[in-house]
Amino acid sequence: MDTPVGDRLRRAITATRRAELGALLVTPSADLRYLTGYDAPAFERLTCLILRPGADPVLLVPELERPRAAASPAGEQIELAGWPDGEDPYAVLAGMVPKQGAVAVSDTTWAVHLLGFQRAVPAATWRAGSPVVSTLRVRKDAQELELLSRAARGADEAFRRVTALRMDGLREEEVAEALDSLLREQGHETVEFTIVASGPNGASPHHEPGARSIRAGEEVVMDFGGTVRGYCSDITRTVVVERPPRGFSQVYDVVREAQEAAFQAVRPGVPAEDVDAAAREVIAMAGYADRFLHRTGHGIGLDVHEQPYIVAGNRRPLEPGMCFSIEPGIYLEGRFGVRIEDIVTVGETGAQRLNRASRDLETVD
Amino acid sequence: MDTPVGDRLRRAITATRRAELGALLVTPSADLRYLTGYDAPAFERLTCLILRPGADPVLLVPELERPRAAASPAGEQIELAGWPDGEDPYAVLAGMVPKQGAVAVSDTTWAVHLLGFQRAVPAATWRAGSPVVSTLRVRKDAQELELLSRAARGADEAFRRVTALRMDGLREEEVAEALDSLLREQGHETVEFTIVASGPNGASPHHEPGARSIRAGEEVVMDFGGTVRGYCSDITRTVVVERPPRGFSQVYDVVREAQEAAFQAVRPGVPAEDVDAAAREVIAMAGYADRFLHRTGHGIGLDVHEQPYIVAGNRRPLEPGMCFSIEPGIYLEGRFGVRIEDIVTVGETGAQRLNRASRDLETVD
Repeated sequence: MDTPVGDRLRRAITATRRAELGALLVTPSADLRYLTGYDAPAFERLTCLILRPGADPVLLVPELERPRAAASPAGEQIELAGWPDGEDPYAVLAGMVPKQGAVAVSDTTWAVHLLGFQRAVPAATWRAGSPVVSTLRVRKDAQELELLSRAARGADEAFRRVTALRMDGLREEEVAEALDSLLREQGHETVEFTIVASGPNGASPHHEPGARSIRAGEEVVMDFGGTVRGYCSDITRTVVVERPPRGFSQVYDVVREAQEAAFQAVRPGVPAEDVDAAAREVIAMAGYADRFLHRTGHGIGLDVHEQPYIVAGNRRPLEPGMCFSIEPGIYLEGRFGVRIEDIVTVGETGAQRLNRASRDLETVD
Repeated sequence: MDTPVGDRLRRAITATRRAELGALLVTPSADLRYLTGYDAPAFERLTCLILRPGADPVLLVPELERPRAAASPAGEQIELAGWPDGEDPYAVLAGMVPKQGAVAVSDTTWAVHLLGFQRAVPAATWRAGSPVVSTLRVRKDAQELELLSRAARGADEAFRRVTALRMDGLREEEVAEALDSLLREQGHETVEFTIVASGPNGASPHHEPGARSIRAGEEVVMDFGGTVRGYCSDITRTVVVERPPRGFSQVYDVVREAQEAAFQAVRPGVPAEDVDAAAREVIAMAGYADRFLHRTGHGIGLDVHEQPYIVAGNRRPLEPGMCFSIEPGIYLEGRFGVRIEDIVTVGETGAQRLNRASRDLETVD
């Protein structure tokens, strides 16, 4: 990935100063990849980027990973500090962090590392890093938008191809395996999730696909995604096998209308929670308020879930370049579920969909 | 996985009491999978098992994941508590945790969750959970040993097959892709890492395989693994293409001897660090003390790195049923590297190797 790395690091240091933080500590995560291009796995050995106002960044790495870090995009511009196995990396880190004041850590930093930081720098106060890093990550640049679009188009095509399967008689897990292969065929380097929920299982939003056989007259909720050069796809479509279950089509229309209402509500300056409210109002008006079991959406980028969250209580104004899912659903226990999800991006005047797969109710064999 | 779930939960609660903890909080991780059979992904929405002395376990889950949790092995025996999107799960959790005293969290719990716990229960003191959970996880039962053995045999066979490739002229990343496919063919459901490091890259222990073409007269370090029903494989072998580089064979013999010395040092009651010292002594005697850049090994099970760590300073006595890697290496910058790694298990009188691939220096085309 040709990341404009230096610029992102400079902006992160500025954001650290503006947030009145003594330091921002970034362990292996999408944050680290975004800021430095270094895609290291999270492990019990501490790897940590240390950003401080008025100082050069330092990347603390296990000594055995120094050559790997040096060979990464991070190695070209960030000073590396190594710590060998058997020594205490938190003591090393304590020498690089202000003894007092506020310090932020990546949201996904492991607790064992945060506890190490807290022990080594006991007078500091600790905060989550996402309010700082998301000021950068939340607005996607042109290259990021291109990768998110490619991921979305790959997911669209995987959906198109999966609907060619004869689903009547297939097990949920077989459809999930097919989605996995189709995403990879469409250029995804990883597949992160393949939810396939049929019949009454459709009422479980995060159903784990299993041995249940899909039958004619049932719906199939498919929610799947993976990554293209690190950037995530995430799409949901609900189809019916041969014919809809009783009462399904009306519910489908409500969800589709809610999804459209949320889409139409997107504009720069609109609080994120207003988009949630737009979807929720349609569903409530149809009498299903308590059957919409989750928020309307989540930001997406290098993480499949990131800011901005499209949820009641999030008053953050939408900005051009933000990308997130719009995925209302209605879940009727013991009967069926419906969810329709697209990734959208905020343009200057409204939203654009990155997913182009039809939202018309599709009937498969 | 047919886990004896109830027994593990009971023993974890006993261990929590013995460690004088008010509660043990377990978020999605190998810990959660081990204790409950629930294999949930780690996310920004809090899922957390709450274990307390003298109380029944509770699994706090996002409301939308309640059906999924209920359908998992956890659902059969653990009370579920749901929290809906838009509410504060840490406030819910605070009602279930003692207001004071020590509370432990899984090592891999995200910082954003630990910070939420600390905000909601400000008078508690916080500790890492692994000293508690590892009292259970560190000794593998018969079923776990069988799965680790299956994973190891799959990795052995993948190694055997990769040596049939003509490596001269292949890129490192091509060999890495071949290892990925071979592990999957051998029954691995995931591939976690495929380090392929040739020539001078072999001197980087965690090298990221790239476009470098392998040539005759070079060594190739291959360190790879994945999972079989959740349990990890991890093997390293170093081969040479057509002929060894100058000075290589002597270094190889030292590493092989160090690996054997560490293996012979394994017995119940021996401190973990003594196994490290046994390997290190052989390497130091040969004059390469400062070229052995890492600990000798790490425990393995549902996590690829877990306790016990085979490292200076770890005086924990080995116990029957422990499983860990023995993987000494010598890294000569600008020239080559050698590492040989097997997974071993501690028996009543000594170690057994789970990996059976030959440690003789192998020459490939």
